Amino acid sequence: MNAPEPMSSRARAAQDKARVLREALPWITRWRGRTLVVKYGGNAMSAEADAAFAADVALLHAVGVRVVVVHGGGPQISALSERLGLAPAFVAGRRVTDPTTLGAVAMALLGDVSVRLVGLVQGAGAPATGISGTDAHLLRVKPVPEMGLVGDVESVDARLLTTLLDDGIVPIVASLGRSADGQTHNVNADAVAAALAVALGADKLIYLTNVAGLYEQFGTADASLISETTSAQLRTLLDSETLQSGMVPKIAGVVAALDGGVGQAHLLDGRVEHALLLEIFTDEGIGTMVVGQ
Amino acid sequence: MNAPEPMSSRARAAQDKARVLREALPWITRWRGRTLVVKYGGNAMSAEADAAFAADVALLHAVGVRVVVVHGGGPQISALSERLGLAPAFVAGRRVTDPTTLGAVAMALLGDVSVRLVGLVQGAGAPATGISGTDAHLLRVKPVPEMGLVGDVESVDARLLTTLLDDGIVPIVASLGRSADGQTHNVNADAVAAALAVALGADKLIYLTNVAGLYEQFGTADASLISETTSAQLRTLLDSETLQSGMVPKIAGVVAALDGGVGQAHLLDGRVEHALLLEIFTDEGIGTMVVGQ
Amino acid sequence: MNAPEPMSSRARAAQDKARVLREALPWITRWRGRTLVVKYGGNAMSAEADAAFAADVALLHAVGVRVVVVHGGGPQISALSERLGLAPAFVAGRRVTDPTTLGAVAMALLGDVSVRLVGLVQGAGAPATGISGTDAHLLRVKPVPEMGLVGDVESVDARLLTTLLDDGIVPIVASLGRSADGQTHNVNADAVAAALAVALGADKLIYLTNVAGLYEQFGTADASLISETTSAQLRTLLDSETLQSGMVPKIAGVVAALDGGVGQAHLLDGRVEHALLLEIFTDEGIGTMVVGQ
Amino acid sequence: MNAPEPMSSRARAAQDKARVLREALPWITRWRGRTLVVKYGGNAMSAEADAAFAADVALLHAVGVRVVVVHGGGPQISALSERLGLAPAFVAGRRVTDPTTLGAVAMALLGDVSVRLVGLVQGAGAPATGISGTDAHLLRVKPVPEMGLVGDVESVDARLLTTLLDDGIVPIVASLGRSADGQTHNVNADAVAAALAVALGADKLIYLTNVAGLYEQFGTADASLISETTSAQLRTLLDSETLQSGMVPKIAGVVAALDGGVGQAHLLDGRVEHALLLEIFTDEGIGTMVVGQ
Amino acid sequence: MNAPEPMSSRARAAQDKARVLREALPWITRWRGRTLVVKYGGNAMSAEADAAFAADVALLHAVGVRVVVVHGGGPQISALSERLGLAPAFVAGRRVTDPTTLGAVAMALLGDVSVRLVGLVQGAGAPATGISGTDAHLLRVKPVPEMGLVGDVESVDARLLTTLLDDGIVPIVASLGRSADGQTHNVNADAVAAALAVALGADKLIYLTNVAGLYEQFGTADASLISETTSAQLRTLLDSETLQSGMVPKIAGVVAALDGGVGQAHLLDGRVEHALLLEIFTDEGIGTMVVGQ
Amino acid sequence: MNAPEPMSSRARAAQDKARVLREALPWITRWRGRTLVVKYGGNAMSAEADAAFAADVALLHAVGVRVVVVHGGGPQISALSERLGLAPAFVAGRRVTDPTTLGAVAMALLGDVSVRLVGLVQGAGAPATGISGTDAHLLRVKPVPEMGLVGDVESVDARLLTTLLDDGIVPIVASLGRSADGQTHNVNADAVAAALAVALGADKLIYLTNVAGLYEQFGTADASLISETTSAQLRTLLDSETLQSGMVPKIAGVVAALDGGVGQAHLLDGRVEHALLLEIFTDEGIGTMVVGQ
Repeated sequence: MNAPEPMSSRARAAQDKARVLREALPWITRWRGRTLVVKYGGNAMSAEADAAFAADVALLHAVGVRVVVVHGGGPQISALSERLGLAPAFVAGRRVTDPTTLGAVAMALLGDVSVRLVGLVQGAGAPATGISGTDAHLLRVKPVPEMGLVGDVESVDARLLTTLLDDGIVPIVASLGRSADGQTHNVNADAVAAALAVALGADKLIYLTNVAGLYEQFGTADASLISETTSAQLRTLLDSETLQSGMVPKIAGVVAALDGGVGQAHLLDGRVEHALLLEIFTDEGIGTMVVGQ
Repeated sequence: MNAPEPMSSRARAAQDKARVLREALPWITRWRGRTLVVKYGGNAMSAEADAAFAADVALLHAVGVRVVVVHGGGPQISALSERLGLAPAFVAGRRVTDPTTLGAVAMALLGDVSVRLVGLVQGAGAPATGISGTDAHLLRVKPVPEMGLVGDVESVDARLLTTLLDDGIVPIVASLGRSADGQTHNVNADAVAAALAVALGADKLIYLTNVAGLYEQFGTADASLISETTSAQLRTLLDSETLQSGMVPKIAGVVAALDGGVGQAHLLDGRVEHALLLEIFTDEGIGTMVVGQ
Repeated sequence: MNAPEPMSSRARAAQDKARVLREALPWITRWRGRTLVVKYGGNAMSAEADAAFAADVALLHAVGVRVVVVHGGGPQISALSERLGLAPAFVAGRRVTDPTTLGAVAMALLGDVSVRLVGLVQGAGAPATGISGTDAHLLRVKPVPEMGLVGDVESVDARLLTTLLDDGIVPIVASLGRSADGQTHNVNADAVAAALAVALGADKLIYLTNVAGLYEQFGTADASLISETTSAQLRTLLDSETLQSGMVPKIAGVVAALDGGVGQAHLLDGRVEHALLLEIFTDEGIGTMVVGQ
Repeated sequence: MNAPEPMSSRARAAQDKARVLREALPWITRWRGRTLVVKYGGNAMSAEADAAFAADVALLHAVGVRVVVVHGGGPQISALSERLGLAPAFVAGRRVTDPTTLGAVAMALLGDVSVRLVGLVQGAGAPATGISGTDAHLLRVKPVPEMGLVGDVESVDARLLTTLLDDGIVPIVASLGRSADGQTHNVNADAVAAALAVALGADKLIYLTNVAGLYEQFGTADASLISETTSAQLRTLLDSETLQSGMVPKIAGVVAALDGGVGQAHLLDGRVEHALLLEIFTDEGIGTMVVGQ
Repeated sequence: MNAPEPMSSRARAAQDKARVLREALPWITRWRGRTLVVKYGGNAMSAEADAAFAADVALLHAVGVRVVVVHGGGPQISALSERLGLAPAFVAGRRVTDPTTLGAVAMALLGDVSVRLVGLVQGAGAPATGISGTDAHLLRVKPVPEMGLVGDVESVDARLLTTLLDDGIVPIVASLGRSADGQTHNVNADAVAAALAVALGADKLIYLTNVAGLYEQFGTADASLISETTSAQLRTLLDSETLQSGMVPKIAGVVAALDGGVGQAHLLDGRVEHALLLEIFTDEGIGTMVVGQ
Repeated sequence: MNAPEPMSSRARAAQDKARVLREALPWITRWRGRTLVVKYGGNAMSAEADAAFAADVALLHAVGVRVVVVHGGGPQISALSERLGLAPAFVAGRRVTDPTTLGAVAMALLGDVSVRLVGLVQGAGAPATGISGTDAHLLRVKPVPEMGLVGDVESVDARLLTTLLDDGIVPIVASLGRSADGQTHNVNADAVAAALAVALGADKLIYLTNVAGLYEQFGTADASLISETTSAQLRTLLDSETLQSGMVPKIAGVVAALDGGVGQAHLLDGRVEHALLLEIFTDEGIGTMVVGQ
């Protein structure tokens, strides 16, 4: 081989690709057969964001990642309630749920959000199934009677999830559960995601939200994004009671998941296209990563 | 042993039990590992009938029968539509389904009927999961555009069902499907039950309805119930166009199932308590049995 | 559904059947794959009782119970001895067994009783095989030289039994064994049944006898049958030395089985037709049940 | 290495051993997992021959040969009959078997010969089990009513044999069978051995007898032993009706086995110690080998 | 989400990465478990090229591709021959191989090239093993006596390769083989690669060479690289006898592989860093692709 | 059977064979599936000895022994070194190995000895593969820099060996290894054999040498061969520093193997034809057996 000629731009593009692949391939290998739980927030996601998210889920599935999607559906529940003439009531960010409202919650989650997400993921190439915490004893809840038919996660029987994952199907989970007597209850989706991640021994829990990560929260002049922190620091933050109410269940979920043995947790900006893919397969630092401590 | 004493009433009761067991045990053996598809009609079932039905499903599951339940939800859809101010429209017994109505159908089936049936079957002891024909490519439909978002069954991918059955979970299937482009459609539940029975190679398809069987249909003076008939005779009956519109999809489903290789089909009176159990495990003749010809 | 009409007698019979099934199905489920050892006594059983017993064994086998039958053959041995001109001698209820008598014992058990029981069980639908404790190291005995070629059970190698059970064959076991040097010995069949139940980790041991249960034994005015008792009480009874000699090995077998981890033991009246079926699959209280204590 | 010293006698013995091993090892390899059916004749075998035979069976078993032993028991049956005062009757070499005689046959085969052979094989190190053609539907026979309860082999269900062989147990088979209605019948043991060899797809069938092989039969001056022949020649011999009656079922068995796909058949002199071992693992020509043609 | 801000360069880099991943992931999925045979030419490769090649092999292995490397070693053989004072002789580009030269060939291939390539691949993270066509009956050759101990590939027994691949080990194969009598022969490495690809049912065969592809060969003014062609065109080219001698075995190998059922064949420029990775996982057109026709 | 005739010489030969078989069969059974590591010394073996050794390896393989052969190649290395003009240098019996010499070592072992032994074993009927400690992380060595590229065994990753053995292939292992940085090193073959035996949990380690066993070593007047000794006694012997330098690594290997859990170790005289076969399958006492203590 003689002295190298100056590299053409096409050759340079090829070498760029090779570099990305060499960065990604070890991650792809490491993630095969591992489990990822993603909470996909109902709030303020656009149709484009939904489609890009579904595409990422399908690609992760294609390379062997066991992905579980958990969703709530606040806006959709509110819209249906309004159509049905129900007046929404909230206490500390949680929806007060009388039996009529619970009906609306179940219908919005299972008959609207779930069917649509399943359709998007399937359209992107991965078989998906909408299930609910009320199926196959998946989520046992402890009623919080002062909130109506609202419950806190009590225990998880993850057999249905592993059955579906083993068979190569992506479970799309609606945040409902049953109390010991079989009654359906409304449950916070952030808490559900954390509980499933623990029950599955997931390698990572990701909250896809509509904020860039964990910096606006501290309410200080220092607006720089926190790219990595620990569960210990988050526990302090929770105790400080300075968090926005919407962030509380996410931060609590992160702490619970890490305490329960999940490897890592992330708060990612769902508005960045393919945030999921970049987080899993590249060294890009997006959002805030939390490790247990 | 001396001359036998006259049998006490307690001894007689014991011998009666032994006789039922000796009648049932061979059937129980024969049904282990076999597949049964039951269409449970939304119409005119009482809360008691629902509970008895769920108990039967759980017992069949307990002795190893692979049970699939298919449900529609006509009354529940109509009730929700009314609350939402939608005016129902029917053509030849099928609901004209514009996009708004489809939303109501999905919500009523998945957020109401399915959650309730799953709860009843689980309460009776068997793990159950509500799924929909829109999940995991289960039901591909061919649109019938003149009816709106209504489709006819085009093909079945039963993998999700076998995954759940293999794992000991009872699938409770809502009668929705997707067209080739992923759009959700409304499908007739009787037709869905027949298509799933064929795809699963089921041993039996049962329609649980609120009539005693196949006798009122012939509109003649001879009111006796037909306890057994053939698919050939039913084809003739279908061609005669003398059937009530509600019976047409059931009779068509029976014929399609038998033509597709299902062993037997039954029209059972769901108002008889434990009709399912009696049909499967005893020699009692309930309703109308149809064999292929 | 309108006001219920008065139930026809046919409908009432159907509901009776449904009730028996609902009572039996959970038991059937629970017994699948479990192990039952039955000692079937040679004494005073009629041809009818033999046939009903064989039918019950075949039905239990059909629903997945792993049944092992152990038999002696006192009357048959005595009859053959007489034909051969041998004078039977007993000490404390046990047959003194010189080599010639042992030949008669082996021939009566294996060439007569075993072949007949195998034939009856096979005629009722279950494949069966006659084996002996002398086969495949099944029963190692410790000689009791003062009784001739009589031995006490020393240890069990149950591999042959599990091989047959795993392959769906009912073992019919004759009560012979071998000493360490390979010599065949006569063993008490009640003791054999208890030892096999322990070695197999059986869920239940049943002695089918020609008495109703455990009440005549106490020799008091109180003639009521004891429907349930404990191994502790039976140990006391054994120590009291008030038992009929024929009951001693049965009571000792019950105690040994329960001490060895068998779940339950029963003394059943073999003269009640299908006593076995009623005991296993219904709530009927027949005979005396003993639990460990 | 210097010029080789003259070989010591010890070195020569070692080289002899090496030579035998090099001759035997390929045969041992070839026979692992293959099936051998041996008919061991009741006639005129000594206690020493029995012990050497049992040792050979155990060694074959130890190196992975699947050995099935079939036995009759003519002398033992006759002895028992005499003790019971029964007058033996034969037609064309077959025992006329009334019900009383059948009882004696079953008792002699199962209670005497089988128990003893099992003991010898077990003493030599291989687990063995005595079974009968009446067990587990092993032998279905077609009655030959003019002979009493005598039957010809009609069909074989070899499942019990393969179960035992798969589990490493040597079956010792008594030559009884059942007719379609379950009645026990007496069957010729030579015919049983041939039928089992065919049903098992055996690689070899061996008749161990008390003659050197196939030469005395031809009744000519040429007394040399036939070391190899074909089924075609034996068919001619059978048609010639010049055979001793005792040899007829053996020759017929050889022909039936070869016609049924068994690889080879042998008539071996059971009086040669370890004849079985030499035939299987060396190039020694013992007895008469027959190949199919 | 408000009006999008102008994208930062960091965000743009992230989206570039996402684009490469979305291009690559389907290929990665498709290649899992598939088989790739690469002939790595001994000629004129630099130490850098060797290292990049080894890194690519290890990455392909990491994502589940079954990679087999075949190598020759012309320069290394020549160097050793020179040290040993052997005069190389070539006929039509093939080395005349007398026994002394064969020793040098085996030593250079197995003791030098193989050990070094194994080391590089292992250093890059994948376990590798150097084997030779003389091992485990891998390559049977037909001698070409006029060339000395040179052979043409006669047949392949690929069991050793599949054993190693199944166990996750990369085989590095030296181009030697054995004739029917066990004699080692020298074989052309291009032909070996093609034969192994056929025997393994490989999905792709790649020749990594020191030319850009198939354009210099045609000796015309039109110097543009042929990016895709067919085996039919190559057959014509072979017949034209206008090829450089070094290209003949490669072109013949491509044709033989495609005729033998290999999906695709490629001539790649080994001087392009990570050519292997770019060819397998991107849409970059590098070198010349050939499909069967 | 009449009085026995005097035994013919042919009959006597047959009984001799039976006796050898009865002696060998239990050993053959015991060795199936067990692991044997044989170090075959390069020194002073003749072509005849090589062929007999290969035949023994193939026979052991045929009856299911898992055989691993380890070889050095002192004479072949010296011969190649000489041809290349390299001056061999030894320190305490170990070859000082500069990079050029290491090249000669690798080429002699892999390109000469290994190819020839593989050919002999395959010619005798067993598939074999030449591998090296440098393959698949088999041998990790700790450099001994004062000797050049010489290493001591540090650890073994036996996966490649078990893969090959499980697939029925005989590994022929050359005594090379890699240091942590991947550099190839020369290792003593006696030490390699001991390390592999330990890593494989071998049942026996055999050193085939050109001495009769362990008697010349003690340097005393008592020249009788030691047929059995213990590792404790050998440790004393090692400490005494009276051993010939060539015996030190063998004795050290025996001690290391026994300390590492290998069942037995042997020093055998490779000049006795079929020494391997006689040692494994007969009671012949050849060479010196050592047991752990």
